[in-house]
Amino acid sequence: MNFELSEDQVAFADMAKAFAQKELEPHAAQWDAEAFFPVDVIKKAGELGFCSLYAPESVGGLGLSRLDASIIFEQLSMGCTSTTAYLTIHNMVTWMLADFGTSEAVEQWGARLATGELLGSYCLTEPGAGSDAASLKTTAKRDGEYYVLNGSKMFISGAGSTDFLVVMARTGSEGAGGVSAFAVDAKAEGISYGRKEDKMGWNSQPTRMVTFEDVRVPANQLLGVEGDGFKIAMKGLDGGRINIATCSIGTAQQAINKAREYMLERKQFGKRLADFQALQFRLADMVTELVAARQLVRMAATKLDAGHADATTYCAMAKRFATDVGFKVCDEALQLYGGNGYIKEYPMERYVRDTRVHRILEGTNEIMRLIISRRMLADGAAEL
Amino acid sequence: MNFELSEDQVAFADMAKAFAQKELEPHAAQWDAEAFFPVDVIKKAGELGFCSLYAPESVGGLGLSRLDASIIFEQLSMGCTSTTAYLTIHNMVTWMLADFGTSEAVEQWGARLATGELLGSYCLTEPGAGSDAASLKTTAKRDGEYYVLNGSKMFISGAGSTDFLVVMARTGSEGAGGVSAFAVDAKAEGISYGRKEDKMGWNSQPTRMVTFEDVRVPANQLLGVEGDGFKIAMKGLDGGRINIATCSIGTAQQAINKAREYMLERKQFGKRLADFQALQFRLADMVTELVAARQLVRMAATKLDAGHADATTYCAMAKRFATDVGFKVCDEALQLYGGNGYIKEYPMERYVRDTRVHRILEGTNEIMRLIISRRMLADGAAEL
Amino acid sequence: MNFELSEDQVAFADMAKAFAQKELEPHAAQWDAEAFFPVDVIKKAGELGFCSLYAPESVGGLGLSRLDASIIFEQLSMGCTSTTAYLTIHNMVTWMLADFGTSEAVEQWGARLATGELLGSYCLTEPGAGSDAASLKTTAKRDGEYYVLNGSKMFISGAGSTDFLVVMARTGSEGAGGVSAFAVDAKAEGISYGRKEDKMGWNSQPTRMVTFEDVRVPANQLLGVEGDGFKIAMKGLDGGRINIATCSIGTAQQAINKAREYMLERKQFGKRLADFQALQFRLADMVTELVAARQLVRMAATKLDAGHADATTYCAMAKRFATDVGFKVCDEALQLYGGNGYIKEYPMERYVRDTRVHRILEGTNEIMRLIISRRMLADGAAEL
Amino acid sequence: MNFELSEDQVAFADMAKAFAQKELEPHAAQWDAEAFFPVDVIKKAGELGFCSLYAPESVGGLGLSRLDASIIFEQLSMGCTSTTAYLTIHNMVTWMLADFGTSEAVEQWGARLATGELLGSYCLTEPGAGSDAASLKTTAKRDGEYYVLNGSKMFISGAGSTDFLVVMARTGSEGAGGVSAFAVDAKAEGISYGRKEDKMGWNSQPTRMVTFEDVRVPANQLLGVEGDGFKIAMKGLDGGRINIATCSIGTAQQAINKAREYMLERKQFGKRLADFQALQFRLADMVTELVAARQLVRMAATKLDAGHADATTYCAMAKRFATDVGFKVCDEALQLYGGNGYIKEYPMERYVRDTRVHRILEGTNEIMRLIISRRMLADGAAEL
Repeated sequence: MNFELSEDQVAFADMAKAFAQKELEPHAAQWDAEAFFPVDVIKKAGELGFCSLYAPESVGGLGLSRLDASIIFEQLSMGCTSTTAYLTIHNMVTWMLADFGTSEAVEQWGARLATGELLGSYCLTEPGAGSDAASLKTTAKRDGEYYVLNGSKMFISGAGSTDFLVVMARTGSEGAGGVSAFAVDAKAEGISYGRKEDKMGWNSQPTRMVTFEDVRVPANQLLGVEGDGFKIAMKGLDGGRINIATCSIGTAQQAINKAREYMLERKQFGKRLADFQALQFRLADMVTELVAARQLVRMAATKLDAGHADATTYCAMAKRFATDVGFKVCDEALQLYGGNGYIKEYPMERYVRDTRVHRILEGTNEIMRLIISRRMLADGAAEL
Repeated sequence: MNFELSEDQVAFADMAKAFAQKELEPHAAQWDAEAFFPVDVIKKAGELGFCSLYAPESVGGLGLSRLDASIIFEQLSMGCTSTTAYLTIHNMVTWMLADFGTSEAVEQWGARLATGELLGSYCLTEPGAGSDAASLKTTAKRDGEYYVLNGSKMFISGAGSTDFLVVMARTGSEGAGGVSAFAVDAKAEGISYGRKEDKMGWNSQPTRMVTFEDVRVPANQLLGVEGDGFKIAMKGLDGGRINIATCSIGTAQQAINKAREYMLERKQFGKRLADFQALQFRLADMVTELVAARQLVRMAATKLDAGHADATTYCAMAKRFATDVGFKVCDEALQLYGGNGYIKEYPMERYVRDTRVHRILEGTNEIMRLIISRRMLADGAAEL
Repeated sequence: MNFELSEDQVAFADMAKAFAQKELEPHAAQWDAEAFFPVDVIKKAGELGFCSLYAPESVGGLGLSRLDASIIFEQLSMGCTSTTAYLTIHNMVTWMLADFGTSEAVEQWGARLATGELLGSYCLTEPGAGSDAASLKTTAKRDGEYYVLNGSKMFISGAGSTDFLVVMARTGSEGAGGVSAFAVDAKAEGISYGRKEDKMGWNSQPTRMVTFEDVRVPANQLLGVEGDGFKIAMKGLDGGRINIATCSIGTAQQAINKAREYMLERKQFGKRLADFQALQFRLADMVTELVAARQLVRMAATKLDAGHADATTYCAMAKRFATDVGFKVCDEALQLYGGNGYIKEYPMERYVRDTRVHRILEGTNEIMRLIISRRMLADGAAEL
Repeated sequence: MNFELSEDQVAFADMAKAFAQKELEPHAAQWDAEAFFPVDVIKKAGELGFCSLYAPESVGGLGLSRLDASIIFEQLSMGCTSTTAYLTIHNMVTWMLADFGTSEAVEQWGARLATGELLGSYCLTEPGAGSDAASLKTTAKRDGEYYVLNGSKMFISGAGSTDFLVVMARTGSEGAGGVSAFAVDAKAEGISYGRKEDKMGWNSQPTRMVTFEDVRVPANQLLGVEGDGFKIAMKGLDGGRINIATCSIGTAQQAINKAREYMLERKQFGKRLADFQALQFRLADMVTELVAARQLVRMAATKLDAGHADATTYCAMAKRFATDVGFKVCDEALQLYGGNGYIKEYPMERYVRDTRVHRILEGTNEIMRLIISRRMLADGAAEL
């Protein structure tokens, strides 16, 4: 066993940290307040490879492991949770295209997604099917050399401002086996975008409904073969769960770092907050749980990298635990700030708002518990 | 013992509920989004007596008990947490003026505050003294028939939009004994207001810094006698804690009511959310803790009404418990809504944002623990 | 509303407190260590009326309300959790006999149970039917002027040392409607008792399996009419839940009282434990949650006394909350004692062991959540 | 990073598992009930090297890393928590002697401790100094070629049944710098043993007070040099914390394994417990937190192995988190067993009793929080 970062990983982390401190953190509050999607900064991140961390080098990706990517995303999320979270979605979409796309599709989109020249969105969730992705109703009907898409997708990150969509749609019968995945031009005729959702947080990325009305998608834009969609989605979700868990870890670490500084400066009753034992104990618990959560995320990432048979279970555990701990840490850091924690002059309340959705996204934490318990009850617990 | 509402209390609650449903709830989301202070609606509330629930009838108040007021505020907060919270502050200020003001001051302000014709703000907290109110630095120097106020107050609810201030300022030496309370015209020369704070929630009430620069206050606007200020503030805080705890209770009850409806409608995997046992159990815990918290608040209110020697301890317990439970219930209700809980189309995320500050205001929940443990360790626990 | 004890209730509490301090507390550790059932002390308690607190005066009971009984049991449990818990079961059995028994049965058993001359046990749970009482398999077949009982009962408190049993058995078809209740002589032919169970706690009361083999019970020992059994059991459970919740409250209060004293005496690092802020805060939370739990129990008791339509729901909430809080408080009090908390020289570890079963008995806390959520989802939450 | 066990580690684990299943688990309940110290079985464990896992090969130890030892102890504790916990103490004592003893002392004791021929106890805690070890009062006065020991030690595991003691005593001034460590013959003249403590759990190891009255210890039995004692103790504690945390992990894993089996078998309301969603979710949380805790323990072990500057902080985090999680998991497993969880026929209640002390021993979890927060506030959090 080895719990230390490699030299390369330290170097990646340092690079990401520098980017986060220079390009993300100084603007994060403003992006939140103005609901501004920082496309230019995302493209800058692309120049460093952050738009295709684990996409293969063949499309211009860095070909890193999920663990490496997690280490980088953690640092980025310390600068801006919401923007980094979008970036992880773009990374997933890029990897999906590169891994499952036809040569034509890869040719058409791969390099430009990998560099961040084009941005991608991921269209899985539907109004009536949140946690129950297998019941999706968007259809893709074959018509000669095309598939014709009809239906609606909800809560789509980046939608309306991105160039490329991965869309899950039903080509076959009911259930998971009838779902296929498509690479779709975001500007294709027949696609319309709803109004920008007002959200509690994650404001630096627009969220919209996407409606498909007789959208014609060339057949060579099918990812994998017909019926692979749900499998691709699930594979994407494993990684997506690592990513979102990572964004919770990074944000919570930032919250701790700032709370620590605040405790060392802020005085009440003639003493620094750092001198109050009850607050010291709370800080100790915050950091302990965060370290535990981080290790769980990293372990899950290595399981995913290794194609471990229980990777999905570990990813679910990591997502459940890290997003709960991350939110709790941010919430307690806010409390340590007192009244200042509640105003937007300080970042604490934003951390709370941004991490809140991580307990819901990429499968709610309730769905994680279903996944974990199903596995536990099926085959034994001892090896987990 | 008797845990039932009286007929009068039921009638008050019904009236408040009707007002909340008609005048508050339909607008609460918009007030939040636009940071709009609904002065007209507050004045309408005043017509029903809601601006002076426990101020004496001599100034036009309803002269109700704290328990009665809590029952009413609970219903109002089901319509709009933030507006009701402001209303509780106005009630406190009105009661302070009526109870401790000179006849001239009562004459000048009492009736108009009681009806809501004028609105009040409460100026205690200072930039350097959050929890440690006794260390406040704003000074009030006697100069003939005037006191001259200098200093700054922070996080003042309503500031800039209200007509009347109760200001705590130092007339004597350091510590609690040197503080006095004043009734101050909010438009008096020398008072300036900071910019409106951007906050996580409580957006329907403006929060500003208030700066006093050689503000001349007639000596007859002193509340009580010199040195009474901290005592008055503490007495105000006992009631303030009941009030803020109540706003948590009402909001959480509303969150439960809505989550319940949602669970009965929303389907996933072919079943209603209400049919999932894990969610049923969560709902059960939410309501159980809420009922426990409500009783604790009502018990504390009766202790305050009775002038019980341990009223302060009970108020601290009620505030700590009810604001923590209230937030937790709202947070879990949001989770039950899944992705919909995170968008502003639904009220869940607002409930979370609005109740978050209750754990901080009127003495942080850490200060509550200090108050409770100090009492516990001083004189024995058995009677509590 | 009124949260104060009446003069009578204070007097009852004082009497119970004196009894607990004189007759229970000095022996509780020994009874636990030796698994000794203090029959003589229970009979002494009977002399004060504690064996029939809410049985009607017609059988020699005190005819008190459930609230009154709860106030008394709370004080008793401060002296010995396990013995008081048995006492509550005896009270329930006595009340069942008095309320539902035929005049012959009441004549035969009532007065002697009421005084504690005879002791009773309650036979509901079966090996295969823990939480699912309605599925019980013990049969009672009518045979002339007798019922003939066959089957086994499990976890029966007092069994083997008591004189009288209330037995739930099936006289009809499957399900709740086929169950009847019987008054049974504990020494009747055909009844055999299993070995005394080794338990984590509750050691001052013997627990045994009871087996019925062709036990002939006179038909006039039927409680209510045939098929009433489940209804009687459920009615008994409402009160039983108040009682067991009360035993958690009393024990936890005692744990707090002792932890408080210990904190004031025990020194570490040159300071009293009472001077460590983190421990102060913990004590504050312990007492706050305990006070909230106690009120919830008392509220539920008043609902039961009033025959409130939702009494069962309130009793379930009180049982769930108070037994969880009670255990948690005891566990934290143990922790405050450090190593001393773990040895039997001090009572903390006994409090933890004794209160642990309260989360399981009289319907597990999981069953409580079922009851609460079923009610919530059926008819609305607002009035609870 | 690498979260997988090596082949050697898997082999060690398998060997330990086989031993636990054959030699420990079948007897653990009886040892608990009879407070029997299984010296013969411990010696058998010694034959496999389990009495000197990380003592150097020079004394006959296996010379394994702390991580390796943790992997082995985890398996052993699945068979018997209490016996394994004693074994970890013996291992610590053996390592202390081997690492810090003079050649004469190592010669005299080393090999026989390493094989388990002799058993050791560790004498640090005193009646007045639980958490505050540096204030210990036992003295060791130099007298020619001897040190003369006077004082009392408390809560000494194995005391009265062991052959060898490591004793911390004061050779110099007050505070940590005045403490020295000694190897002491447990049968030496002047040593007397108190009565066997009755404890909540950990019953397979005797716990006694040890009193030293003019006990003459040859000067060559000093470990390290005068004044090294506290440093040695602290170094021992780092490892001791890993060990005790490990015993919590193993026990909790066993509790989960058994609870899982029980859920698959036990039926209520016509369904297996495994089919109730609320119980599934609970199982999922139990396993998730356990996996997180295990990783934290293993990470801390690697930090200790590597001599990492923050090893003490990581060990404190691991101890705090794993012992809290371990207890909680056992407590919830007990609850899943319902009434059966409370009786000694099933192991659940023993798991709860045995793991309860882990939150107290080797520095209470409150002391852990002090250690963690002190480090956090001193030098920055980012690297942890």
